[in-house]
Amino acid sequence: MKARVVVTLKTGVLDPQGKAIEGALASLGIAGVGGVRQGKVFDIELAQPDADAARETLKAACEKLLANTVIENYTIDIA
Amino acid sequence: MKARVVVTLKTGVLDPQGKAIEGALASLGIAGVGGVRQGKVFDIELAQPDADAARETLKAACEKLLANTVIENYTIDIA
Repeated sequence: MKARVVVTLKTGVLDPQGKAIEGALASLGIAGVGGVRQGKVFDIELAQPDADAARETLKAACEKLLANTVIENYTIDIA
Repeated sequence: MKARVVVTLKTGVLDPQGKAIEGALASLGIAGVGGVRQGKVFDIELAQPDADAARETLKAACEKLLANTVIENYTIDIA
């Protein structure tokens, strides 16, 4: 079973990396970009055949390792 | 208009970061994870009201800055 976890910064948390990308795009002549926020994506292969068990595993993985829940949100999509 | 760009490593390209996460999850006692590949996600706010123009802008941004197309794939989702 495959799953995708997306970790993004919470609203209001400063994202200097996103700001740098915004500036770089402008200096490359790519106009019309109003804002950029960067996050992380994890494509995870799971042994569990059951979607509920897989979701529990991924939730534990996010809480313990993949996301810093003080400043980041995560979403889990199981394919 | 909001868009999400996801940049992932191409199949066959080694992902030491993903391997490290896999090892860390195992040592945290989270079982059943067969493989992890890490990528990047960009949430981009666009000024263009037209989806086609927005897609062209994002394609240029990916080719020039966001993705290294030698080793990475990108997908563009416009909301």
